[in-house]
Amino acid sequence: MKLSEILVSRFACGEVYARPLETVRGCDVFIVQTATHNVDKDLMELFIMMDSLKRAFAAKVHVVMPYYGYARQDRVTVPREPISAKLVADLISSAGADHLVTITLHSDQVQGFFDFPVDNLIARKLFVQYFNKKKIKDLTVVSPDAGGVKEAKKFANLIGAELAIIYKSRTAHNVSEVTSVVGDVKGRTCLLYDDMIDTAGSVCNAAEALRKSGANKDIYLAATHAVFSDPAVQRLKKAKFKEIVITDTIPLDKKKIMQNLKVLSVANMLGDVIKNVHESKSVTVVL
Amino acid sequence: MKLSEILVSRFACGEVYARPLETVRGCDVFIVQTATHNVDKDLMELFIMMDSLKRAFAAKVHVVMPYYGYARQDRVTVPREPISAKLVADLISSAGADHLVTITLHSDQVQGFFDFPVDNLIARKLFVQYFNKKKIKDLTVVSPDAGGVKEAKKFANLIGAELAIIYKSRTAHNVSEVTSVVGDVKGRTCLLYDDMIDTAGSVCNAAEALRKSGANKDIYLAATHAVFSDPAVQRLKKAKFKEIVITDTIPLDKKKIMQNLKVLSVANMLGDVIKNVHESKSVTVVL
Amino acid sequence: MKLSEILVSRFACGEVYARPLETVRGCDVFIVQTATHNVDKDLMELFIMMDSLKRAFAAKVHVVMPYYGYARQDRVTVPREPISAKLVADLISSAGADHLVTITLHSDQVQGFFDFPVDNLIARKLFVQYFNKKKIKDLTVVSPDAGGVKEAKKFANLIGAELAIIYKSRTAHNVSEVTSVVGDVKGRTCLLYDDMIDTAGSVCNAAEALRKSGANKDIYLAATHAVFSDPAVQRLKKAKFKEIVITDTIPLDKKKIMQNLKVLSVANMLGDVIKNVHESKSVTVVL
Amino acid sequence: MKLSEILVSRFACGEVYARPLETVRGCDVFIVQTATHNVDKDLMELFIMMDSLKRAFAAKVHVVMPYYGYARQDRVTVPREPISAKLVADLISSAGADHLVTITLHSDQVQGFFDFPVDNLIARKLFVQYFNKKKIKDLTVVSPDAGGVKEAKKFANLIGAELAIIYKSRTAHNVSEVTSVVGDVKGRTCLLYDDMIDTAGSVCNAAEALRKSGANKDIYLAATHAVFSDPAVQRLKKAKFKEIVITDTIPLDKKKIMQNLKVLSVANMLGDVIKNVHESKSVTVVL
Amino acid sequence: MKLSEILVSRFACGEVYARPLETVRGCDVFIVQTATHNVDKDLMELFIMMDSLKRAFAAKVHVVMPYYGYARQDRVTVPREPISAKLVADLISSAGADHLVTITLHSDQVQGFFDFPVDNLIARKLFVQYFNKKKIKDLTVVSPDAGGVKEAKKFANLIGAELAIIYKSRTAHNVSEVTSVVGDVKGRTCLLYDDMIDTAGSVCNAAEALRKSGANKDIYLAATHAVFSDPAVQRLKKAKFKEIVITDTIPLDKKKIMQNLKVLSVANMLGDVIKNVHESKSVTVVL
Amino acid sequence: MKLSEILVSRFACGEVYARPLETVRGCDVFIVQTATHNVDKDLMELFIMMDSLKRAFAAKVHVVMPYYGYARQDRVTVPREPISAKLVADLISSAGADHLVTITLHSDQVQGFFDFPVDNLIARKLFVQYFNKKKIKDLTVVSPDAGGVKEAKKFANLIGAELAIIYKSRTAHNVSEVTSVVGDVKGRTCLLYDDMIDTAGSVCNAAEALRKSGANKDIYLAATHAVFSDPAVQRLKKAKFKEIVITDTIPLDKKKIMQNLKVLSVANMLGDVIKNVHESKSVTVVL
Repeated sequence: MKLSEILVSRFACGEVYARPLETVRGCDVFIVQTATHNVDKDLMELFIMMDSLKRAFAAKVHVVMPYYGYARQDRVTVPREPISAKLVADLISSAGADHLVTITLHSDQVQGFFDFPVDNLIARKLFVQYFNKKKIKDLTVVSPDAGGVKEAKKFANLIGAELAIIYKSRTAHNVSEVTSVVGDVKGRTCLLYDDMIDTAGSVCNAAEALRKSGANKDIYLAATHAVFSDPAVQRLKKAKFKEIVITDTIPLDKKKIMQNLKVLSVANMLGDVIKNVHESKSVTVVL
Repeated sequence: MKLSEILVSRFACGEVYARPLETVRGCDVFIVQTATHNVDKDLMELFIMMDSLKRAFAAKVHVVMPYYGYARQDRVTVPREPISAKLVADLISSAGADHLVTITLHSDQVQGFFDFPVDNLIARKLFVQYFNKKKIKDLTVVSPDAGGVKEAKKFANLIGAELAIIYKSRTAHNVSEVTSVVGDVKGRTCLLYDDMIDTAGSVCNAAEALRKSGANKDIYLAATHAVFSDPAVQRLKKAKFKEIVITDTIPLDKKKIMQNLKVLSVANMLGDVIKNVHESKSVTVVL
Repeated sequence: MKLSEILVSRFACGEVYARPLETVRGCDVFIVQTATHNVDKDLMELFIMMDSLKRAFAAKVHVVMPYYGYARQDRVTVPREPISAKLVADLISSAGADHLVTITLHSDQVQGFFDFPVDNLIARKLFVQYFNKKKIKDLTVVSPDAGGVKEAKKFANLIGAELAIIYKSRTAHNVSEVTSVVGDVKGRTCLLYDDMIDTAGSVCNAAEALRKSGANKDIYLAATHAVFSDPAVQRLKKAKFKEIVITDTIPLDKKKIMQNLKVLSVANMLGDVIKNVHESKSVTVVL
Repeated sequence: MKLSEILVSRFACGEVYARPLETVRGCDVFIVQTATHNVDKDLMELFIMMDSLKRAFAAKVHVVMPYYGYARQDRVTVPREPISAKLVADLISSAGADHLVTITLHSDQVQGFFDFPVDNLIARKLFVQYFNKKKIKDLTVVSPDAGGVKEAKKFANLIGAELAIIYKSRTAHNVSEVTSVVGDVKGRTCLLYDDMIDTAGSVCNAAEALRKSGANKDIYLAATHAVFSDPAVQRLKKAKFKEIVITDTIPLDKKKIMQNLKVLSVANMLGDVIKNVHESKSVTVVL
Repeated sequence: MKLSEILVSRFACGEVYARPLETVRGCDVFIVQTATHNVDKDLMELFIMMDSLKRAFAAKVHVVMPYYGYARQDRVTVPREPISAKLVADLISSAGADHLVTITLHSDQVQGFFDFPVDNLIARKLFVQYFNKKKIKDLTVVSPDAGGVKEAKKFANLIGAELAIIYKSRTAHNVSEVTSVVGDVKGRTCLLYDDMIDTAGSVCNAAEALRKSGANKDIYLAATHAVFSDPAVQRLKKAKFKEIVITDTIPLDKKKIMQNLKVLSVANMLGDVIKNVHESKSVTVVL
Repeated sequence: MKLSEILVSRFACGEVYARPLETVRGCDVFIVQTATHNVDKDLMELFIMMDSLKRAFAAKVHVVMPYYGYARQDRVTVPREPISAKLVADLISSAGADHLVTITLHSDQVQGFFDFPVDNLIARKLFVQYFNKKKIKDLTVVSPDAGGVKEAKKFANLIGAELAIIYKSRTAHNVSEVTSVVGDVKGRTCLLYDDMIDTAGSVCNAAEALRKSGANKDIYLAATHAVFSDPAVQRLKKAKFKEIVITDTIPLDKKKIMQNLKVLSVANMLGDVIKNVHESKSVTVVL
C-alpha cells in the first residue's frame, strides 16, 4: 500500500502549512511523525496535519510517533516544574488524535497521560535477533543505571547473557558520587543496553567503569532512540565501542554517522502494527 | 511592579524547560510571549510555561501575545486545509489559559475561536499620536488592499487625512492582475497603513503604484506587526519610504534595523491593560 | 430514497416536541433545518430533534443548515458584544451534531467556530449555469461592497464578465459618506452579486449608484440567501431590477413573491453532497 | 441596588442582539429571564446575554429563571423521545452559566441534569402567608393529581387544613377513565393546589368533581406558575373559582387578567436569595 | 455466542484488578454488572473493567446494569444532599461507557443524567406472562404507594385485574400517619406490585392494611428488584404472602431463598436486547 | 479551627449517603479521606461527599488523600491491563475536585494523571527527625528494591547513614532469582526504608538477606504507608525487627498493633499544608 500524499511546507515567516492531497473522508488515517532536535516544530507540524485531517472528515486519526518527545519530563521533581510529557499528551488529544503508537516510552506511566489507547511497542525483539546472530561468547548485558534494570534483565534472558548493573552512589554523605559495577564483568564481553542515547555521558562513563572493573574485551552499546545531542558523537568516538547499535526511530543526521554504528529498522514492526490496527486484529501477536 | 522570575531553558536535545522561581499559588499570572520567526518554539515555550503555572496553582493564567502566530490561517479556502489559527486557540486553551490579550488580530473572527474572553487591543492610537505630532500637510492614508479599508478609514479620520485604496483587480478574465489606485493621490504625501508587514511584497508594489499615479512627495509606511520575513528588508530598502513606522509587538532582529525605521512601543498600553485586568476595571477606558 | 418521518409539533404553551417515527439506531442521520425569520424557534427545533436522535442511538448526526442563522454576529466590534455565530456553533455541538453542511457562510472563519468538520458549499455554480444560458452581452458583475469582491471576481471570471465594485467612502473627515463605483459601467448591463439580501438597502443604493454612473441598461441582482426582512420587498420593487435571482436556502413567504423573482434550487447540490458524505466520497467533486 | 443595564434588541431578520452597557469585568452577574409562551426566543436571548457577559469577563454568571421552560419533557416515555429539560440544561451550561436559581421545578430530578449547583426555591411560603391571613374555616387542600400529593400534604399541614386527592383511574380494563375524589370534601371549602396551570383542563375537571362530591362551598385555586395557554382563561372563567391565586414567575398578559385573580410576588424571595448567594451566605435561611 | 473471558480478581490489599483475556480491538463489548449489597465494589469493578476495555481499543462499551445502584438518590430533598444517581452516571461516563442498558429505573428521569443513549427496559412483560398463566379470579393489583400507580395501572390492564392503592396520609395536622386503602379489596385476591423490595417494610405494612380492609383471600407480591436488605426476609416470612415473585436482576443470596419465592429470569429479554443493539435493530420490538 | 461536620452513613442496602451539616457556600473545603482495605467504599464515599459539596456551592474542593489507592496500577505491563491509578484520577476529577494533596505517591508520574495541581508531600522529614534523635551508630539505610534507591539515598544523607541495596536478580537465564545485598552491611545496624508495607514479603526477605550478609546487629524497618494486608503482621512478628516505624496515613486496625510498632503522625504536616493552601502561601516552605 502506498503512502497518501500530504503537502507540508513552511511560509517565509516560519509558520507551517499542511494539506492532504487526496480525500480522507471516512478513512482510518495513520500519521507518522517522530520527535527530532526540532521537537517543537515536529509537534506543531503534527498538530496542524491532524487539524487538516480532522476537518477533512477522517474517520480515525492514529498518531505514530516512534520517539515520543518530552518523554523525560514526566513528573514534578522540584516544586513548580511542568509535566511536559503530560502537556504533549493533552496537546495531541486536543488536536484530534484517537490513538497513539509509539516505541519504548521512557516511562510506561506516560500511557496513563492519555485517555485513549496507546500502543507502546518495545524494540527489544530487533536487538535480540541482531545479537543472537552474532553468537557472542561470555556476554554480559549491562544496564547503565538502576532505572533500566528490569528491561535489561528481560533482554539478557532472551539472548542468553548474564546481567550487570552500573550503579551511581554516594555511600556516605559528603562523599562524591561513585560509579560502581554490580555483577561480575571481569574478562567478559559487555553489552550496554539502554532506552536512549542523548548526550552519551552516562553510557561513556559506564564503559569506562566497566573497563576499570576488568571488562577487557569488546564493549557493545545498544539503545532504541539515538537522540545524539552534542557532544554525543565526540564522546562516542572517544569511548571506542566495538559497535553502537541503534534503531531508526529518529532520523540520523549524516554528520553523525560513525564507522561502528549499526542502525536496525523499526519499519517492518510499525508496518505490521499499522496493518493489524487497521484490521482490528490483536497488536500483541506481531511483537 | 517587577517581573516575576521564570526560568526558561533548552536541553541539548532541543526540548524546552520552564519553571517559575517564586511561588505563584493563588496569583493572577500574566505571561507575555509573542510569535516570532520561531513561532513553533515560541508556542511550545508558552504551553510549557502555562503547564508549570497551572500545576503550581496559579489562580488565573492570562496570556499576553502581542502578535498572534498563525493568525492568517483562519479559514478553509481550498478543501482539506487546516484552520491553524483555531488549532492554536485550542492548544492555548488546552494548556490552561483563562484569558488572552493580543494586539490587532489579522481577522476579528479569531476572537470567536476562544471560549474565554479575548482582549484584542488595537495599536491605532500609537500611530495617531505619532503622526499628529508630525503635522504633515496634504496627507492621504492608503490601504494596500481591500481587506484593510475599514481600519484605514478610522485611522485617516483620526489624523485628519484623506483616504485612498490600492486595489488589485483582473477586470476582465484572461487578463493579468492590475494594481490600481482608488482616490486621488496626485501631488500628495502618502501613508501606507496595514496590520502587518511580512515579506513586504504588497506594500512595496503599492508604493510603486502610488508613484505611478502621481504621488511624487514622501511615502510613509505604518504597520503594527513587523514580521519582516526575507526578503522584506531588501525590498523595503529599495522602496525608499520616507519612514517605516512599526511597533515592538515582535522583537526586531538587529540585522533588520534600517535607518528610516521608527519603532513605537506597545509597552505602556499593555501595562495599562494588565493593570486594569488585574484590578477588574474596564479595559476599554485605557484604549 | 425517501425522507424518514419525524414528528415535530408545538404544545399550547409554545414548547416544541420532536420524535423520529422510525428506528434510527446505528443510522447516519441528516437533519435539514434552515434559519428563517423565526430563527430562535428554528434553532430550538433543531436542537430538540438532535437530542431525540442522539438518545435514539443514531450513529452520526449531520446538520444540514442551508442558511446559517446569526452568521453576521461573528466578532466583537464594540466592547461587550456577544459572538452569536460562535454561540450557535457551541449550541449545535452541545446538542450532539457530528458534522455541519451549510451554504455560502457570511464569513469563512465561522468554520473555525466548530471542532468538527464543516462543509461550506458555495452556490456560485448555480448562478454560473443560469447566467451562462442567458448569454448576456456587455455584462459587468458588481460587488455591492468591499467584503464581497473576492467572490464576485471568481464569479465574473466563470461567466466571462467584467468586474466593478460599489465602494462606500468618506474620503475626507467631516464629509458625508459617498457611494462610488470603481470600474467602468457606462452603457453596460450590470449584475449585482452578493451573499444575502436582508433589508435590501445596500443593493438598492448600489443600483441607484450604478445608474448614476451611466449603467443605463438592465441591472440584474443575484444573491444566495433571500432573507427579505421588511422593507426588502418594497425597496426591491421600487429598484426595478430586470431580474432578482435567489436560491431556496430560505423558504420564501408567498407574500414576498415578485414578478421578476427567479428562484434557483439548491436541492440537487445538497442531495449530491449528502449522498457523497454518506458514502464517504469526496464532497469537492460534486461542487 | 439598581439593575445594571443591558441592551437587548432584535434585528429586522429576527435575530436577537444583547450587550451589557456597563463593565462587568470581575462581577458576579445575575441574569433574570423566565420562560414565557415565546420560550424559544426567551432561551436564545438568555444564551446570547450569557455569551456577551462571559466574553466581557464576568466572574460568575448566575441564571435566575423563575419558570424553567421545557421542564415537563424530563424523561423518555415513548421510544425516541427527546429529554428536552436535559437539553435545556446542557445549552444553559454550554452558554456559560455557573449557577441556576429557579422556582418550583416540575420534577426535582431536573436538578441532576446540571453539573453545577441549582437552587430550586419553593413558593409554598407565599401561599401559606396569604391563606393563613384569610382564616378560612373547614378548609380542605386538594391535590388535582397523584403526582402533587406530597407537596399538597406539606402545604395543608402549614395552613392547618385537611387533605383530599383527585384521582383519575380506570379501575377495570375497557372502562373509561373516572375522576374520583379521595378524602371527605362534603360541605367543605376546597383549595386546589398545584405547581402550574397550563391549559387549566385538569384543575377545572377537578373543581367539577369536587362539586359532584358535595363540595358546595367556595373552591379556591392556587398554583405557582401561571402558564395560562389557550383555552385556560375561558375554562377558568367558566369554572367559577372563588379566587385564583398565582405568582408572578411568568409575566401575565393583560388580556388574561380576571376579576378573581390574585398575583403573589416572588420578587422579595428572589431578592433575598440573590443577596445571600452574592454574599456566600446560606440560601436555606431565607426560604 | 459464548461469553468472552475477563479476569477479575482482588489483591490482598482490597484493590480490584481486571483484564480481558482475548483481544477486544474493534469489538462492540457488552459488560454485564449489576448493583448488589456491595454496590461500591460492584461499581469500581465495573469502572476498572471499562478502563481495561477502553485502553484495549474496544469500539464501543455497552454497560448492562440490570439493577442501577444509588437510583433512589435522584434529587436534593434536604439542602446540601448529593444527587448520587447523577454522580454514578457521571462516573460511568467518565470511565468510558457509550451506552447503558438497565431495567426498571426507580425514576425515569435518571435517563436524563446521561449524555448518551439509555435503554430502560421494563420487566412488566415477564410478570404479565407469569400471572396470566395462573388465571387468578377476582384479582386486584395494588400499588403500595402513590408513586407506583401509573405502572400498576398499566400492569392491571394487561392482566385484566382491578386496581387499588395503598395511601399513607395525615389528613389533618398533628395526627399520626394513617395507611388507607383506596379501591375495593373486600373478598378479593390481591397482588402487591412495586419496582423493588428493599427492607420490605412498606409492602408488609401494605399487606396488613389490605387484610384489615377485608382482603381475606391470597395476597401475592411482585417486584422487579429484590434488594432484600435486612430485615426483609424476616418481615416477608411473617407477612405470609401466597407467593413472592421477583426477577434475577440482583443475584439472590442462598440464605434469602424462601419457600414461596418465585424468580423470573430477565436473561432472555437482555439477550434479545443485546442482539438487537449489536445489529443496530430497534430495541422496542423485543420488549 | 474545628472540623466542619458532615454526616456520612450507609443505608441497609449498602449505599452510602453524605451531607454537610453546615453551609459551605463559597468555602474552600478540604475533605480528608484515605484509602484503606475497603478502598472501593472509601472512594465512593469520597465521590459522594464531593458531589454534595459541589452542589452546595463550595468554592473549591481540595481532596486530602494521605494514601492514594490503586497507586501501583500505574501502567500497562501486560496487554489489556487497566491503568487504575489513572482511572481513579479521572473519577476524582469527574466528581468535582480542584486539587489533590497526597503523601509519598508510589510513582511520581501519577501527578501527571491529573489536570489540576497535585501536592505530593514526602513523609521523609518525619523519619529523619525520629531517627536523628536515636543517634544510632554504624547505621546503614537499606532500600529493599531497586525502585526505592533514589529516595533511600536522600534519606541516608539526611541522617548521616550509609546506603545499601537489596537486589533481586537472575544473573543468568534458567537460574532462580537471587536476593543479593549491594553495599557493606557486615556488623552494622540496618534500617530498611520503603514507601509502603503491603503483605511485608519483600521486607522480611530483605531482613533475612541482610542477616545472611553479616548484619548481626539490630534491623529497623521504616515505611510511610502501612497497608498491612494479610499475612503482613505474621511475617513482621516472625522477622524480629528492632522497631517498625510507620506513619498514620492509613488508620491502623487494633489487631495489627505490635509491641515494636511506632507510629509517627502526619497530622501536623497536613495541617500546615492545608493552612498554607488556604492562605495561598507556598507549600514548599512547610515541607
